[in-house]
Amino acid sequence: MSFSPLVNELIETLRVLPGVGRKSAQRMALYLLERNRVGGNRLSDVLARAMSGIGYCRDCRSLSETEVCPLCRDLRRDDTMLCVVGSPADVHAVEQTGFKGLYFVLKGNLSPLDGLGPEAIGIPDLWARILRGSFTEIIIATSPTVEGDATAHYIAQMLVPKGITITRLANGVPLGGELDAIDGGTLAHALNGRKPMSL
Amino acid sequence: MSFSPLVNELIETLRVLPGVGRKSAQRMALYLLERNRVGGNRLSDVLARAMSGIGYCRDCRSLSETEVCPLCRDLRRDDTMLCVVGSPADVHAVEQTGFKGLYFVLKGNLSPLDGLGPEAIGIPDLWARILRGSFTEIIIATSPTVEGDATAHYIAQMLVPKGITITRLANGVPLGGELDAIDGGTLAHALNGRKPMSL
Repeated sequence: MSFSPLVNELIETLRVLPGVGRKSAQRMALYLLERNRVGGNRLSDVLARAMSGIGYCRDCRSLSETEVCPLCRDLRRDDTMLCVVGSPADVHAVEQTGFKGLYFVLKGNLSPLDGLGPEAIGIPDLWARILRGSFTEIIIATSPTVEGDATAHYIAQMLVPKGITITRLANGVPLGGELDAIDGGTLAHALNGRKPMSL
Repeated sequence: MSFSPLVNELIETLRVLPGVGRKSAQRMALYLLERNRVGGNRLSDVLARAMSGIGYCRDCRSLSETEVCPLCRDLRRDDTMLCVVGSPADVHAVEQTGFKGLYFVLKGNLSPLDGLGPEAIGIPDLWARILRGSFTEIIIATSPTVEGDATAHYIAQMLVPKGITITRLANGVPLGGELDAIDGGTLAHALNGRKPMSL
């Protein structure tokens, strides 16, 4: 035990952060203690406020410290399109594309083996949101995995009677990728979904 | 702005940690908010206690929340040997070797160009510590760099009149290293410091 108990406790506690092992935690603790106590105190304060103050937006179920998040409150958004994603990080990713519609955030994907049924991931809330809105298109942007596809199908089936256009993100080769580095399944999807070139 | 203001503030504030960029900070913030609020609150609490409660040990000047750190209080340590290092992390590194003497932690190395003179790095405190102790050997374990060597020489010169044995860590090839991957300077030191094999 070459650090004092409180220094050790700080190092161990920093390991709660994902991707931080003993060595990184030690570097972080010593950096804060020796060079940036102001930063350490600010982090403590913001963490406390965030952990107690951030809940879920009433409309999109993304993380928000207000009842309705800024994005759902924004009247300039296109309220005829709803993009359904699997996590708040996915909202951030789709926002980078310039998408201007609204969102709904599921809590992950359906996974019966893990006990995650429709209620657990928030499908009833999604249904209520759609009934409350005036959407003409629902874009199901769950992840392109077995669970994500199953979740997408479940939602699509549920929406059939509503007569709303239901779409899913295109699968294909990512930009800048080398063909021989791409897995066969992706390539098959890209081939199936080939498009006429615009000349 | 696809996260709410407080989520964004948490992400930005996590970047105070060394080695954490925007992407890692986002992953950390969402992980704490979605899966481990208990951990987030504990981190906030320990950070606050550490930033305000941890000072410097009166004797070794390492980080400690008590006036004298546990290591300096430990009567089983060999109080005839003092190992002088450049940071609290170095104490931890030397402790792994099984060294049983005492430590003194300088605040880095002498660096006149950066305005770091003897007072800035704590040489007067080191001098006072040595006068107060009954050391027969001072091991100068500053880093094997130009600044570390200069600091070692400065301390050694200062101690000549005291007649204490002054030693410096051996330079040489690290265990498990490939010879052709080792820089010329290190190899030259290793060759100069060669030892008869014990058969």
